[in-house]
Amino acid sequence: MAQGGKLEPYTYTPRPLGPQDVEVAIGHCAICGTDNAFGIPQKYPVVVGHEIVGRVTDLGADVHDLKKGDTVCGLHFKGRDAYCTQMVLTSRHQYSDGSPTRGGFASAIRVQAKHATRVPAQLDPAEAAALVCAGVTVYVPLVRFQVKPGDQVGVIGIGGLGHPALQFARALGADVTAFTSKDSKRDKCIRLDAHRVVNINDADQVQGAANSIDFMLVASNSPHLDWNQLATFMAMHGKIVVVAAPEVPISYRLSFFIMKDIQINTSLVGSISEIQQTLEFAAQHDIHPIIERLDMKDCNEGLQRMREGKARYRVVLSN
Amino acid sequence: MAQGGKLEPYTYTPRPLGPQDVEVAIGHCAICGTDNAFGIPQKYPVVVGHEIVGRVTDLGADVHDLKKGDTVCGLHFKGRDAYCTQMVLTSRHQYSDGSPTRGGFASAIRVQAKHATRVPAQLDPAEAAALVCAGVTVYVPLVRFQVKPGDQVGVIGIGGLGHPALQFARALGADVTAFTSKDSKRDKCIRLDAHRVVNINDADQVQGAANSIDFMLVASNSPHLDWNQLATFMAMHGKIVVVAAPEVPISYRLSFFIMKDIQINTSLVGSISEIQQTLEFAAQHDIHPIIERLDMKDCNEGLQRMREGKARYRVVLSN
Repeated sequence: MAQGGKLEPYTYTPRPLGPQDVEVAIGHCAICGTDNAFGIPQKYPVVVGHEIVGRVTDLGADVHDLKKGDTVCGLHFKGRDAYCTQMVLTSRHQYSDGSPTRGGFASAIRVQAKHATRVPAQLDPAEAAALVCAGVTVYVPLVRFQVKPGDQVGVIGIGGLGHPALQFARALGADVTAFTSKDSKRDKCIRLDAHRVVNINDADQVQGAANSIDFMLVASNSPHLDWNQLATFMAMHGKIVVVAAPEVPISYRLSFFIMKDIQINTSLVGSISEIQQTLEFAAQHDIHPIIERLDMKDCNEGLQRMREGKARYRVVLSN
Repeated sequence: MAQGGKLEPYTYTPRPLGPQDVEVAIGHCAICGTDNAFGIPQKYPVVVGHEIVGRVTDLGADVHDLKKGDTVCGLHFKGRDAYCTQMVLTSRHQYSDGSPTRGGFASAIRVQAKHATRVPAQLDPAEAAALVCAGVTVYVPLVRFQVKPGDQVGVIGIGGLGHPALQFARALGADVTAFTSKDSKRDKCIRLDAHRVVNINDADQVQGAANSIDFMLVASNSPHLDWNQLATFMAMHGKIVVVAAPEVPISYRLSFFIMKDIQINTSLVGSISEIQQTLEFAAQHDIHPIIERLDMKDCNEGLQRMREGKARYRVVLSN
């Protein structure tokens, strides 16, 4: 991919297969919002994509936990976790020797075996690709902040992140409210396990949801999100966790948050073990993200659908 | 006090002394920032002041825990705690029967005995008045967020709230950094137990403090506070606690907070038992807030010094 351009076929020699590496034939790679925009300076050409699921085709001499044919994922972050300062990102980043990392819009990838997480057999590999990053990003804070049965959970922004959040929160036993600006999403939200839907542009619905939410997941990167309105939805001592951010600054009146002891937290994807936990929970609770399937060669169309906000809700590219 | 006007002498009949009430002869009342501005609609005339220390002069029939002559305070909130929805504020508020509450810029006050906290004998009563609200406001979050010896604690905004925060944080064993926009406060900050001072307008000092703070107490209500700069001071997984808020909205880039897992919390004064704990901790650790002493009749001068940001750091009015 050249800067600002479309993706084009690109052939490269992968890094040598080290003794602790595996080679994975990529079956599926989902498209993340960050595949369209990311804060890291780029050396073009780049190979994007990090929500990868595939089968092990080769193993380094020291790899004993995996075998050829295993379905793996969890290639998202190569560091210990998303906050590791030594982290090497799956794509558009570089190894310690300066060579570039190349991502999952590809036929194969070589990675350290310890970052290849086995995918539970019950999961559809294409759906699993949509959970590796998006699902982990929303499931981890629900667990980290100890959401429990009966908690009033809100999800604002029903898209690639928000839609599995509704499913995970419901499976955890929470009472789930979807907040959306689009009435057209109402039925789909209910189908996705929300107990109710609040249109944030409807004054009566907004009023009815006042002071109701113990835990709000902000999964919207809209620059128009009204943070003062968000405070009105929160119950006393409520917690907000932000997993998406607009590229412009946000703004709000602190006093609204102080009076109700509202905590603003953020959460960034998850660690390798949390990826494993997310997939196991999804398998156990029969969670199926809603995906659009495209051939890998149609990756530009997929990126375009993401850019235009048309994807319902995650585009997964398949070889 | 009439709206927008100066305080003037005002005589009123207090509420009857109920069986669970005490009457307190007010010795000292400190001036809080909220005595100049407060979000509650007012019925004038009002009697402001809630940082009260005085001696018990009369007791209702059912009061057995206090006796005449006891020095008490903790009259700040009459509810169970600062988040109680049934809360009755000490001044400029109303009892359940609709009658007004009248505050501490006065000769005496009647309150429920359970909201009159005994002041440790080691404390100067005038200094105690400066701790009842300001001290509690900063000590409670330090404890609530489990600040421990060796933690890197920052305090931004060195005024009525910030200056005892430096003292309490040091007494808790933390390594304390004062952040201020005024070089003139440097020496005083060090005397107040900061280990170091960072001028937030000095690029080199700001750079030197990057990624250093585990726990930042925001005690500034300046509308000019740069929240993006604040994020640069924070260490990975750092926690911000806000105890003061500007009247204008704040603004910042969420992505700066997400990348470092920075949590934004708020804290609102404290409960009755936390007031007790704060005073006991101050007595035990020999903490002396820096106050300016004025006669009660000079309350207008005190309010003016607060409005102009000249108070160093808390004005205490005495009868």
